[in-house]
Amino acid sequence: MMVGCIRQQGTDEQYEKFGKRAENFEITGAYAQTELGHGTFLRGLETRADFDRKTDEFVLNTPTITSYKWWPGGLGHAANYCVVVANLYIDNDPKGVAMFMVQLRDEKTHMPLPGIDVGDIGKKMGFAGVNNGYLGLKNVRIPRTNMLMRHAQVLPDGTYVKSPASVLAYFTMVFVRCLIVRNNSTMLSMASTIATRYSAVRRQSPINPKEPEPQIIDHVTQQMKLFPEIATSIAYRLSSTKLWQLYDQTAEDIKCGEFGRLPEMHALACSLKALCSRDSANGVERLRLACGGHGYLASAQLANLYSAATAACTYEGENTVLLLQVGRFLMKSCRMLMAGKPLVPTISYLQDAIKVNGLEKWTGSWQNILQALQIATAHKIRITFENLTARLKAGQTEAEAANNTGIEYTQAAELHGTCFVAATFLEEVTGPNAKNRSPALNKVLENLLELFLVNTAMKYMHEILRVANISDMELRALQTRLEDVLKALRPDAVAICDGFDFHDRNLKSTLGSYDGNVYERIFEEAKKSPLNKKPVPDVIYTHLQPFMKAKM
Amino acid sequence: MMVGCIRQQGTDEQYEKFGKRAENFEITGAYAQTELGHGTFLRGLETRADFDRKTDEFVLNTPTITSYKWWPGGLGHAANYCVVVANLYIDNDPKGVAMFMVQLRDEKTHMPLPGIDVGDIGKKMGFAGVNNGYLGLKNVRIPRTNMLMRHAQVLPDGTYVKSPASVLAYFTMVFVRCLIVRNNSTMLSMASTIATRYSAVRRQSPINPKEPEPQIIDHVTQQMKLFPEIATSIAYRLSSTKLWQLYDQTAEDIKCGEFGRLPEMHALACSLKALCSRDSANGVERLRLACGGHGYLASAQLANLYSAATAACTYEGENTVLLLQVGRFLMKSCRMLMAGKPLVPTISYLQDAIKVNGLEKWTGSWQNILQALQIATAHKIRITFENLTARLKAGQTEAEAANNTGIEYTQAAELHGTCFVAATFLEEVTGPNAKNRSPALNKVLENLLELFLVNTAMKYMHEILRVANISDMELRALQTRLEDVLKALRPDAVAICDGFDFHDRNLKSTLGSYDGNVYERIFEEAKKSPLNKKPVPDVIYTHLQPFMKAKM
Repeated sequence: MMVGCIRQQGTDEQYEKFGKRAENFEITGAYAQTELGHGTFLRGLETRADFDRKTDEFVLNTPTITSYKWWPGGLGHAANYCVVVANLYIDNDPKGVAMFMVQLRDEKTHMPLPGIDVGDIGKKMGFAGVNNGYLGLKNVRIPRTNMLMRHAQVLPDGTYVKSPASVLAYFTMVFVRCLIVRNNSTMLSMASTIATRYSAVRRQSPINPKEPEPQIIDHVTQQMKLFPEIATSIAYRLSSTKLWQLYDQTAEDIKCGEFGRLPEMHALACSLKALCSRDSANGVERLRLACGGHGYLASAQLANLYSAATAACTYEGENTVLLLQVGRFLMKSCRMLMAGKPLVPTISYLQDAIKVNGLEKWTGSWQNILQALQIATAHKIRITFENLTARLKAGQTEAEAANNTGIEYTQAAELHGTCFVAATFLEEVTGPNAKNRSPALNKVLENLLELFLVNTAMKYMHEILRVANISDMELRALQTRLEDVLKALRPDAVAICDGFDFHDRNLKSTLGSYDGNVYERIFEEAKKSPLNKKPVPDVIYTHLQPFMKAKM
Repeated sequence: MMVGCIRQQGTDEQYEKFGKRAENFEITGAYAQTELGHGTFLRGLETRADFDRKTDEFVLNTPTITSYKWWPGGLGHAANYCVVVANLYIDNDPKGVAMFMVQLRDEKTHMPLPGIDVGDIGKKMGFAGVNNGYLGLKNVRIPRTNMLMRHAQVLPDGTYVKSPASVLAYFTMVFVRCLIVRNNSTMLSMASTIATRYSAVRRQSPINPKEPEPQIIDHVTQQMKLFPEIATSIAYRLSSTKLWQLYDQTAEDIKCGEFGRLPEMHALACSLKALCSRDSANGVERLRLACGGHGYLASAQLANLYSAATAACTYEGENTVLLLQVGRFLMKSCRMLMAGKPLVPTISYLQDAIKVNGLEKWTGSWQNILQALQIATAHKIRITFENLTARLKAGQTEAEAANNTGIEYTQAAELHGTCFVAATFLEEVTGPNAKNRSPALNKVLENLLELFLVNTAMKYMHEILRVANISDMELRALQTRLEDVLKALRPDAVAICDGFDFHDRNLKSTLGSYDGNVYERIFEEAKKSPLNKKPVPDVIYTHLQPFMKAKM
């Protein structure tokens, strides 16, 4: 992360000087932005860098406990250098946020340098192997040339030269969010594989009282826990691929000095990062619970996957904050629509959907389900816009009105992202790409799409019913379709997961190995536990027996 | 647990002999039921106890790897005795499940006895301080009189005397499930306290661009994360109190030989255990996420609370299995209704609700919301029953039909439990108990009830809209009510949590202490981390620096 940052934010000379040394393993680094008291709101950072014209240096300080850098990975002990994000001051005049290359530890002894208070932040829910660190700075002086100056600059006389394209810093965030969608969809596929394989091995509770206990995957309620997650992981995987394509196009545009596509790209990355991190984390956890008690074993690896998946809900932009940003984008789109201006492609469905007075007819076809979702989304966007406008008319500031309409902002953003995921899945299975697949493979994908769309329609039925007349019989038919497609997927479920092609070494799960030797592996892991090194651990003699004697 | 078991399942002499010794700390015990390959389905246990008439002994064996006892708390190392649940055989003829008192370890040396393979099952998601254990038995002989014989008995000549009231074993399970509702609602209150207090300390993201960052509790989306969980924890707390009252009445009845109330009690305990464990776990996790990155710190204590809360989803009856049992109870109630028989009190709403053709009129009053929920539940029960019946008519066995209707069984059970929780909350706030409270206090409870009911109505709106005509304007009015009540609760939120009266010693949370010194406490905890004992941990010299040199 530090190297990437130096490459993007530093000059070529700075990259030669610092970046290459890190790439060559001569130094180790971290990227320190978040503070103990400050996260998402960058301008609120308290760490300050004051320019000292006399010595041509910056003086860095974390003046309060809340300004201590907190969380950066590798900062605790491994890093001897660090990119510090701080507010820049020249003659006590704030110039905005900038980045500074700071040496933390002696390269030979690894001891912290004067003015540097650095250490580990202690135990977390996950990431046991990462030394997330804290960093306090007290009058730490660095040469002026240690400020990363590809964009903004400070000249020796103290002149501040503004960045010509501040938009570029924010494009890095878009990149990381695209990455999260890919990673988290993969974690959900991994958890699906573990739970589905285990469900084909585990036997429990006879369906017919006189028959032996079936594989639990034959219980319909178990299928309902497993198969939707398989489908969801594929849906996000496909969306992530589409997202990368858009990212590459946007990156090309930027090289040509064309920034027009960026707000759309930003909104899409925000909504998919928020939805995929949330749905993958919740999905992993549902799958863990689907493995019953053994899902609670560390060796099942599901708790670890959950810790990793859920962390993405708060890092790189807290999910609610991101959804609120998407909400603002939707409100802007609404205004553009009303001004007769054209909309960007991923929100263009709004043009038609907002005009119609509800869904013309519910047929339940895939295309029809997507249309119902889009019209429900348009409806939500419209009422959000109306409520926002009413608050503005009542005298609230734009910001207050947005805060008070916040719940609906996030609902609209969630629906908007869901439309993209559903449309992408539908396009992949029924569009031109289908021709490159065998009919047998596409049939399986059709089943997964059917499950995803029926399930999504049911999940948002409270919104769909606001814009569509659907009879009770039609709702019952939807339930039947759900049950039918679960049954259809049953014979393929394990094979679909095998098709994800995770190696046992990567899954590292006693429940989810390819050979299905679940119980042997659980047993083997237990035998390895440090608590089983002696038949009687010392604590029995030192604590338990004396305690019992004292109580007797 | 072992002592309680001996008291309930053992004879008075057995209690004197074994139970008292455990109470006096002369021996330590565990209760071993679950096996590596067998959980909820008790008859499937593979551990067997064969009666040997010649020696007047039982011979206990775990003949396969899947029959190893797995999970019992304290079994790994602490226990030297254990109640083993096994299938009883006399002359190879199975007599059903029975319980046996088995010595595992020498009382002095604590070494495992011959034929006993015992140890710790290794790391889990939570409960780091509990030595959950495994146990293998190989021709372990115990005196006949070590079988717990309060109910069923084996005589010296091998005669098996059946239990007159097998129902009693199952009443213990009801007790434990009532306990879980109480405990888990408390965990949700604890997490609410931590997150609400933190939200009043943490500042983030200006609402108005030129003003300082507000307490995050002033963001409406944050209120939406916090306040519903406060209300839910109180709703389940009240339901748990009602549940205990019913439990006490049922226990009284049983003493008088009256078992009629038991199925109702069982169904209610099952549904509340399932709903409360699920909602409390999900709620704790939402609250953890509401604390942003710092919620991920172990010292926030929220991850620990989550590990404890979620464990209750699978232990003491896996939630889906329990909801399916409630579903069966609902189908039975349906049949009774159709046969013109009276229904037990907690399902009596079905009598009226199933007759009406939907909700007469949506007014949105509290009573009306409850009625809408009840009619939606009745509708779900009816269509579940119809689908079950159709499958039976199509030739499926009762069991197959139940499995194929399983998703709807669990949906109906969830709605049924929700009706009980909503009705209980409504009764508490508007019924006779309100008179014992100050108007000011009851006003706060009214706000919490309003939030709970509006939120619950929205959550189940897809079901309510099937039985009620609610216009879009009325749905928007509901959204306004939600936003209004969040605002009304804002000034009281911290005080409500203070009212839960958890001591800092019990919360053990850096984010949730009474004095609000969040950042100081986080810092203090980090400083205590073992990773900060030396300024440079040895691993830097032994691993990191050699690794870098090798790479250079």
